[in-house]
Amino acid sequence: MPPARLSRRHFGSAVLGAGISGLLTATRASARQTPRPVVNGTRLNAQLMDLRRFGGTSAGGTHRTGYSEEDRQARVQVAAWMREAGLTPTTDLAGNLIGRRAGRLDLPPLVFGSHIDSVPDGGSYDGNVGTIAAIEVARVLEERATRLRHPIEVAVWANEEGGLFGSRAVSGQFDPAELRQMTTSGKTVSDGIAFVGGDPARLAEVKRAPGSIAAYLELHIEQGGILEATGTAIGVVEGIVGIRQWDVTVTGVSNHAGTTPMDARQDAMLAAARFIDTVNRVVRARPGRQVGTVGRLQARPGAVNVIPGVVTCALELRDLDDTVILRLFEDIRAEASRIAEATGTTFAYAPLHENTPAPSDPRMRALIGASAEALGLSTRVMPSGAGHDAQAMAQLGPMGMIFIPSIGGISHSPKEFSRPDDITRGANVLLGAVLAADAL
Amino acid sequence: MPPARLSRRHFGSAVLGAGISGLLTATRASARQTPRPVVNGTRLNAQLMDLRRFGGTSAGGTHRTGYSEEDRQARVQVAAWMREAGLTPTTDLAGNLIGRRAGRLDLPPLVFGSHIDSVPDGGSYDGNVGTIAAIEVARVLEERATRLRHPIEVAVWANEEGGLFGSRAVSGQFDPAELRQMTTSGKTVSDGIAFVGGDPARLAEVKRAPGSIAAYLELHIEQGGILEATGTAIGVVEGIVGIRQWDVTVTGVSNHAGTTPMDARQDAMLAAARFIDTVNRVVRARPGRQVGTVGRLQARPGAVNVIPGVVTCALELRDLDDTVILRLFEDIRAEASRIAEATGTTFAYAPLHENTPAPSDPRMRALIGASAEALGLSTRVMPSGAGHDAQAMAQLGPMGMIFIPSIGGISHSPKEFSRPDDITRGANVLLGAVLAADAL
Repeated sequence: MPPARLSRRHFGSAVLGAGISGLLTATRASARQTPRPVVNGTRLNAQLMDLRRFGGTSAGGTHRTGYSEEDRQARVQVAAWMREAGLTPTTDLAGNLIGRRAGRLDLPPLVFGSHIDSVPDGGSYDGNVGTIAAIEVARVLEERATRLRHPIEVAVWANEEGGLFGSRAVSGQFDPAELRQMTTSGKTVSDGIAFVGGDPARLAEVKRAPGSIAAYLELHIEQGGILEATGTAIGVVEGIVGIRQWDVTVTGVSNHAGTTPMDARQDAMLAAARFIDTVNRVVRARPGRQVGTVGRLQARPGAVNVIPGVVTCALELRDLDDTVILRLFEDIRAEASRIAEATGTTFAYAPLHENTPAPSDPRMRALIGASAEALGLSTRVMPSGAGHDAQAMAQLGPMGMIFIPSIGGISHSPKEFSRPDDITRGANVLLGAVLAADAL
Repeated sequence: MPPARLSRRHFGSAVLGAGISGLLTATRASARQTPRPVVNGTRLNAQLMDLRRFGGTSAGGTHRTGYSEEDRQARVQVAAWMREAGLTPTTDLAGNLIGRRAGRLDLPPLVFGSHIDSVPDGGSYDGNVGTIAAIEVARVLEERATRLRHPIEVAVWANEEGGLFGSRAVSGQFDPAELRQMTTSGKTVSDGIAFVGGDPARLAEVKRAPGSIAAYLELHIEQGGILEATGTAIGVVEGIVGIRQWDVTVTGVSNHAGTTPMDARQDAMLAAARFIDTVNRVVRARPGRQVGTVGRLQARPGAVNVIPGVVTCALELRDLDDTVILRLFEDIRAEASRIAEATGTTFAYAPLHENTPAPSDPRMRALIGASAEALGLSTRVMPSGAGHDAQAMAQLGPMGMIFIPSIGGISHSPKEFSRPDDITRGANVLLGAVLAADAL
């Protein structure tokens, strides 16, 4: 069954195994006896806004890049909130801030959280919502003196926006060569990790083994506009899309724009333009939610009165299924060779970056869906087009992600906004999912 | 009669007035009595190569930007060659080097020449061929003790490549504000003019009145590949095309390349790509030799994983007929509004630069054609897609231009090349045209 056709109905039937189905029924039954725990939405949203003390901008956004002074100070505050929520905060060797609370049994931990670093001049919701909601969930458990079977760990992953550095160190997907990489804070990754309390020399020790966590859950803003546009309260993430990027070099012949007749040109810009149109057409030609983008282009020599001889641009394709990405790429390449022939140019492709898709765990999707349903919230199963720490955690155990609406689909911008009520709803779904996951 | 349909036949019939026809017959008749004068091709080509002492590069090109030290030193050499050719060199107030020889009668001068400045890392033929050939023509007259009816002036125009600064000062098309403009020599136009011996404070005095020259003739390399491709020896320039340039700003909405579905995008890059393809299609849709180019493009924010929100690119259109340029622009605009509607973007246009077309004088075309014919050389009537000092001189009197083949159509590059024999042929056509123009 293609993911696109998943609907809410499936949580109650096909997708749910009998065991989970029974479990959720039991959870709902106990909820009828004692009032179902809920988060304190006022407190949650106030704390989220309070976090803007660290890097909040006058435009309403937040500038708190990973490893920056704002990041370091915000972590001190978050660690204090963790303590208030009954968690014991520590900074691991990769600079991740982990607040732990013991469980009743000797089991692997239930991990949930997000990040608090932002892109330069970013928004105040991306990462922060999931982090503060995770602390709020822990606080509700603490206030109700509910000790779970599993230990819980609230994670604030280091430098998510720079490239999931903290979570990838934990999942073992970190290449030591990356330590020398420069970050938006102006520090190398190595210096940045040390700055926030990690130890880049001992980074390998932070790696955890597959199976070492009971589950990973993350609440996050959608960063797209689908939930708002469809009037849906909660997105149940079916996986984090894979990404493949290529540098595409179109080579023609640079020539005088005045003296070269139209039929004698080998115009790299014209060929690149047709390529960009083709990318759009090929990606849209098949059903599904795959996306394709050309976001960067450089024409050389780049003068008003010179036919460009070389154009380089970047092609990015994303889908939940890597074979779909590769098939799209082959279709685009085939069309591009026809463009090359028609324009007297050549196309060359150099892989730039790739990220394999990270599907969420069907059991996690089921209990997130059930948690939302129990709250009377509409849900939609959807891919995450953006990358998240959850994709690294999926290497270690069953992963699930919860989306709440981003107003206007805007993200990575001071205009990023999610409604307080939606944030509260998302936190309640997370709370329900954590409780359900603990019973697994 | 559209210029495109002019052919060699017209020189002998329709285009030629009876007066010119008779004159050329007379010239040919006298050529039967005394041997027709010809240039010394060996000397001409040797001198052309010798000029590479000033800025010649190891790649075979020349780096001699206007107002540079190489330019200044080369002028000293050229002035010496002028003296050997019986000319009296002076530098005018705009820094143009003018070698004059008196005529038999008190008539306005016959002016011919070109320039010796190059683009950065340019070729060794652009401008130099016309300059050295003009001196050779004067030398032949001197050696044969042929004093013309008109005074002759061999002109080496200052800083042609920077924007026809020297010739435009003479034609009165120079705006004093341009004096502050920076040039590729690292000097302002004002400092550059002073550096080569002009006087920027008295620049207005260099202006000449329309009708103050008998004619202007210029030999130049084609800078395009038409003569070579068609196996034609001589191009008779029907005019220098007009140029209009616009900055085109395409505005969409910048968004996350992963979370924004294809059908929810307002992708400025996609719209710009379709625009570039449209420019090509519209320009090629009508017969004629108009050209349209997009040579420059900038996408913002310009990241691999962000849908561009704003793309600026430069549109350039050239044709011999300004109304054709404007009609093309309107057609492109109309198509662009359809693209805008389909992509959820807007297009805005800001004029960047314009140059009105400068047609050559029909009498000059006729006598250039006849001069080539007398030498048994094939000709082709063609526009000049590139700008030349001749377009400024066309303001002052009848203008004619002679093209010789550029191998591979390459120009403004160290690979620029014209065959020595073609250069000699061009110089002989210039010599014949000067003699014929003197008889007008």
